[in-house]
Amino acid sequence: VLDALVADLAADPPARRLVVLTDDVVAPLYADRFVRRVRRRGLSACLIVFPHGESHKNRRTKGWLEDRMLELNVGRDAAVVALGGGVTGDLAGFVAATWHRGIPVVQVPTSLLAMADAALGGKTAVDLPGGKNLVGAFHQPWGLYADTRVLETLDERTYRDGFAEVVKAGAIGDLRFFRWLESHAEALLERDPVRLEQAIGACLRIKGGVVVRDETEHGLRALLNFGHTIGHALEAVSRYRTTHGRAVSIGMIVESVLAVRRVGFPEPHAERLRALIETFGLPVRYRGRMAPEAIVRATRRDKKVRDGRVRYALPRRLGSALPGSDVTIEIDDAEVRSALAAVN
Amino acid sequence: VLDALVADLAADPPARRLVVLTDDVVAPLYADRFVRRVRRRGLSACLIVFPHGESHKNRRTKGWLEDRMLELNVGRDAAVVALGGGVTGDLAGFVAATWHRGIPVVQVPTSLLAMADAALGGKTAVDLPGGKNLVGAFHQPWGLYADTRVLETLDERTYRDGFAEVVKAGAIGDLRFFRWLESHAEALLERDPVRLEQAIGACLRIKGGVVVRDETEHGLRALLNFGHTIGHALEAVSRYRTTHGRAVSIGMIVESVLAVRRVGFPEPHAERLRALIETFGLPVRYRGRMAPEAIVRATRRDKKVRDGRVRYALPRRLGSALPGSDVTIEIDDAEVRSALAAVN
Repeated sequence: VLDALVADLAADPPARRLVVLTDDVVAPLYADRFVRRVRRRGLSACLIVFPHGESHKNRRTKGWLEDRMLELNVGRDAAVVALGGGVTGDLAGFVAATWHRGIPVVQVPTSLLAMADAALGGKTAVDLPGGKNLVGAFHQPWGLYADTRVLETLDERTYRDGFAEVVKAGAIGDLRFFRWLESHAEALLERDPVRLEQAIGACLRIKGGVVVRDETEHGLRALLNFGHTIGHALEAVSRYRTTHGRAVSIGMIVESVLAVRRVGFPEPHAERLRALIETFGLPVRYRGRMAPEAIVRATRRDKKVRDGRVRYALPRRLGSALPGSDVTIEIDDAEVRSALAAVN
Repeated sequence: VLDALVADLAADPPARRLVVLTDDVVAPLYADRFVRRVRRRGLSACLIVFPHGESHKNRRTKGWLEDRMLELNVGRDAAVVALGGGVTGDLAGFVAATWHRGIPVVQVPTSLLAMADAALGGKTAVDLPGGKNLVGAFHQPWGLYADTRVLETLDERTYRDGFAEVVKAGAIGDLRFFRWLESHAEALLERDPVRLEQAIGACLRIKGGVVVRDETEHGLRALLNFGHTIGHALEAVSRYRTTHGRAVSIGMIVESVLAVRRVGFPEPHAERLRALIETFGLPVRYRGRMAPEAIVRATRRDKKVRDGRVRYALPRRLGSALPGSDVTIEIDDAEVRSALAAVN
């Protein structure tokens, strides 16, 4: 896939110069090789490396990257290559969205989470201390290139993290895919390349189908946020030390309790969801190290808040959304507290 | 106009809550009154005041405003009202463009410069120490409300500053308007409200005509940058102490020298341009307090740079652009140095 990308870049360059943004974990594995290949094809390219981890996906790192780009005289005739996981895609995508009021970005996800979810759909952002992804932009990529072979080098914990979004895709959008995941979890955990490609393809189809209908989230797209209202709150309260996948896993469990109580999500579906999350080695219990009250408070910073009231995107059954164009429902803090307690 | 705005906001609210962003000069004059009127109509509104001046149009102030908005629980169901001059429009517009990935902004310009130019067209940005407007977004306003009566309270220097963009509009887009300015300069300097409204109307028509044809500046829109390549460089080298209007005035003089030498801009047109700028009490001479070399270096950060070469948007004659879709021309540093020396 890296070869295909380099060939595409050479055949129809998005810009006169490429700026590869990547973190210090991915850089030694792929960045130098990529930059060398690109240069061999006669394209101009430079590399900027920032420290890895969600706790660096903030305005300070964005400003630091911009200062480096200014030093390197990166102009409007450049394009960003976001080479890395979800954090890199969000951060580098946002840098591209605002550099000289917007230059192209090529998404090259290297984690399962980014391949199956984050790199598609044009959402870019940085976190604020008080809340996840609160400052950002919609900025669709020039292209998305996912090479499943790079998943072989992921450490087990980061690899498993990605299954949170894979399970979510099935839970909100496709019962058949959810069933397929139940049957193929073992092969996926063993990183079977054929199964992986099928799973990622299915996730991208499900997400793509939602995004093309509601690119800037006026309604339907909120559905992709299942598990994320609680998930983002957990991340913020943990100061972004809890990974996105683990936070969303717990988030889906808590929110499925809400779904059972409020929108008739069948209890057996909640059971299957929990079982599948557990199969992938992801947490299904909110461990009480974080104060429930802090989590409830953090949900008030969610982007789906309306009139000061927090709204949740809940599936009605496995694989299907609430009817109508608004897939969210208002839920008060007391119910959320009770759901948090139920999964403790 | 303030009444019309409040009525429009009440009749068809862009959001459930308004966040008025303004600077500490405009706040005591109009902000409290505006917020009171809006609230009287049953709309929710809050006010955030930041220090005035271009030197505050940076990432730090943007971050500070975001932190205040987070404290005030401003969500995606809010809209920003940018109440102030060009700095406020750019900064508050950019805050709106990225808050929760974009909320509506209402532009309420209070300076001549913002009314005639900055508030229209959707350009928003902050400055970097090394260059003007290098980080930003295109974010079209929900509405633009300009009340020429507020110009009565502008101090003379700030008022005159606005004529740089007014003269530019005539110089690049409309010879008849340029002639009209030559005949009505006195009335405009006396702040004749009828003439002012006509002048602002003409500027918005000229700029609007360009922007609708090339919203995100792939070609024609660059024409609005006449005087700005040198102008922005002067601003950056002065650490944003030279005002935008004064910098653009000198910029137009320097760039008209380039236009005479490179694209056959008639010498008598350059003379008329200089005379009109002087009539409005704006500078026509680059005073040597800033090193020419620093200015040349700063132009390399311009957004129109391509392949490391600086491009200038020059008119071919008063009121008309270069033919073709690319209205810019590459000019090397030596020629720029010589033009700078010529107007010293």
